[in-house]
Amino acid sequence: MELLKDKILNEGKALNEKVLKVDAFLNHQIDPSLMKDIGKEFARIFKEKGITKILTIESSGIAPAVMTGLEMNVPVLFARKRKSLTLTDSLHTAEIHSFTKGKVNNISISGDYLTAADKVLILDDFLANGQAAEGLNKLAQSSGAEVIGMGIVIEKAFQPGGDLLREKGLWVESLVKISQLAEGKIVFEDKEAVK
Amino acid sequence: MELLKDKILNEGKALNEKVLKVDAFLNHQIDPSLMKDIGKEFARIFKEKGITKILTIESSGIAPAVMTGLEMNVPVLFARKRKSLTLTDSLHTAEIHSFTKGKVNNISISGDYLTAADKVLILDDFLANGQAAEGLNKLAQSSGAEVIGMGIVIEKAFQPGGDLLREKGLWVESLVKISQLAEGKIVFEDKEAVK
Repeated sequence: MELLKDKILNEGKALNEKVLKVDAFLNHQIDPSLMKDIGKEFARIFKEKGITKILTIESSGIAPAVMTGLEMNVPVLFARKRKSLTLTDSLHTAEIHSFTKGKVNNISISGDYLTAADKVLILDDFLANGQAAEGLNKLAQSSGAEVIGMGIVIEKAFQPGGDLLREKGLWVESLVKISQLAEGKIVFEDKEAVK
Repeated sequence: MELLKDKILNEGKALNEKVLKVDAFLNHQIDPSLMKDIGKEFARIFKEKGITKILTIESSGIAPAVMTGLEMNVPVLFARKRKSLTLTDSLHTAEIHSFTKGKVNNISISGDYLTAADKVLILDDFLANGQAAEGLNKLAQSSGAEVIGMGIVIEKAFQPGGDLLREKGLWVESLVKISQLAEGKIVFEDKEAVK
């Protein structure tokens, strides 16, 4: 997705070999118009697959997921990282290990909103080690739903998550794949654009 | 906003005198089409006020804020409740006291994305005791930005937040005001609809 690459090159910042800061438009400040284009692109990729629900995780997955849900005309469900007062019924939970923060988090969804009748598209902003995506996949499986595919805004292809998920047979589509980061340097996998 | 009242009556659930569960369409599962209508309504209310940025808080404020940002053609900034790896520069922070959870949280934004040149619309899903809204107002003030108004999806008008904020001179617009909750009972302030 060329528009997204341009945005990453113009407003993203590689802090080191692992961290790409995109909080100018994706995960702190949000560019709604870009989110709309991202939603259209995911809808184009996953159309005609009978998707009935989009599953994402708070907080940075919500904006692209809601725009995709609008385009595909399906509801969005976001897994919670913290317990909610009103999230009490038939919980499904999964553990995810955060490599960057060095701790294990529980994520959860209500079984009221994901059932065996659902065909799920999992969406997230980043794919690195794949822990969040695997956690979301487990939540979908706990509920009996069928996972049709995963859509990722930015895949850090030099980290193992993408390979792990694809080796399991999951259909993973990333709008942008980054093959290398270094301080001040961003290399895309197709090598067309380098900062 | 009649559409939102209908949604609350049909899919919301009053758990007790204080808690309205709306996680079927607003803060766990999200109805993207409803969010679009909410965005249009906020854009209608706050148009022609020179708004340059929408400020909200993770996670449930994000969906309505992004749709409003799309309609108004302005960026959205969401305050974080937890620390982020990449959120390091010129932080503004505020304390908010959660009555329901009985603890104090720090919320923060990067000063890179809110400056004295900004005219801010603060948006959130609920207004009850007003702590989150006051925290967002403080963050905006710390950055020198001008707060034009606040948009709330659901105001629990029997709790003190709305009065507190309006007494300070803040312009607060709520799409729906609820005057009373009890188990299985929802009363709107204009008394047109009762469940």
